[in-house]
Amino acid sequence: MNLVDLSARELLDRFASSDPTPGGGSAAALVGACGAALVAMVSSMAKTRTGAPEERERLDTALRWAREAGARLRVLVDEDTEAYDAVRAAYRLPKATEEEKAARKGAIAVALARATDVPMRTAEACLVVVKAAQEAAAHGNPNAVSDAKTAAALAWAGLVGAAENVRINVGSPGETQSALLTELEEATREARSRLESLGLL
Amino acid sequence: MNLVDLSARELLDRFASSDPTPGGGSAAALVGACGAALVAMVSSMAKTRTGAPEERERLDTALRWAREAGARLRVLVDEDTEAYDAVRAAYRLPKATEEEKAARKGAIAVALARATDVPMRTAEACLVVVKAAQEAAAHGNPNAVSDAKTAAALAWAGLVGAAENVRINVGSPGETQSALLTELEEATREARSRLESLGLL
Repeated sequence: MNLVDLSARELLDRFASSDPTPGGGSAAALVGACGAALVAMVSSMAKTRTGAPEERERLDTALRWAREAGARLRVLVDEDTEAYDAVRAAYRLPKATEEEKAARKGAIAVALARATDVPMRTAEACLVVVKAAQEAAAHGNPNAVSDAKTAAALAWAGLVGAAENVRINVGSPGETQSALLTELEEATREARSRLESLGLL
Repeated sequence: MNLVDLSARELLDRFASSDPTPGGGSAAALVGACGAALVAMVSSMAKTRTGAPEERERLDTALRWAREAGARLRVLVDEDTEAYDAVRAAYRLPKATEEEKAARKGAIAVALARATDVPMRTAEACLVVVKAAQEAAAHGNPNAVSDAKTAAALAWAGLVGAAENVRINVGSPGETQSALLTELEEATREARSRLESLGLL
């Protein structure tokens, strides 16, 4: 059963339990999905900002972005928990012999790479939602501008939460790591500047 | 049936539909509740930052704050939708006669006051979660610091989303309105400074 098929109450209770999964990475994806849903709401309303036809086009694009990113984020809720459970399982592998030690080390590296990749994709999808929210705020129904701005704040929080999860799992510095962290910083900076344009920061 | 008793998937679908409720106010409360749940996770873990007894005390306090605020936020998910539905119902009241007009005007004022009060309480509860998250990040299990920081980002987003909903419903300026907006600005400023301390802004 997928986490998003649990009741919201049950899912919140699972986050609240002292068990490390589901944790911040899954919560970040869920909150990004929440932002995507609000963008979908605003951009599928019949009313646009002034009624100009180009607004409808911009909103249709925002709706497509929000739906695609939202669908990915719902899947990432589970992927993050699976990835982190795999990290924990790898650390529990036996390490009595040299062979076991080598196998365990390899398994940990593979699991950590995945536990870095998953929140990285969450951060990317959240950035798409921030962009779509900005479009919805600019061109959508003025009565729903608070919903579009809420969506942007939620997606920013999902991005920032995912970024913290990338950083904690990325491990010792190397070329791949430093490329990932640069991409993450750029995404964070872009999201922040979009929130500033919306008057949220 | 309460909104948090729906599956998370169904709740996301309801946010995504072009119907204005549930909307940003309910989503903000849900995301604040998500942040509260992550704080509860980190502060109920057996391991603390260094193992010092005062850390356990600080975390027990953070846990109590997170549980109380989280319980309120779960209820506010529904209250926000009910409050906004009441505003829409008031606007649909008949306005053919002077009496009807007066009754409708009164009903709208009452409904808008509630639709301001509910997100105001969401913002207040989210601020408590930001504080609790900061405690959890400072004194909790270092392996879960990314969860505590994610919680702070989520609660900030809930606060900012709720604030947008207060502003859109608060109506024409008056003493009550200006007191509310001042309280809101202070809460936003405090949350922002706490996020800056956590390196999230």
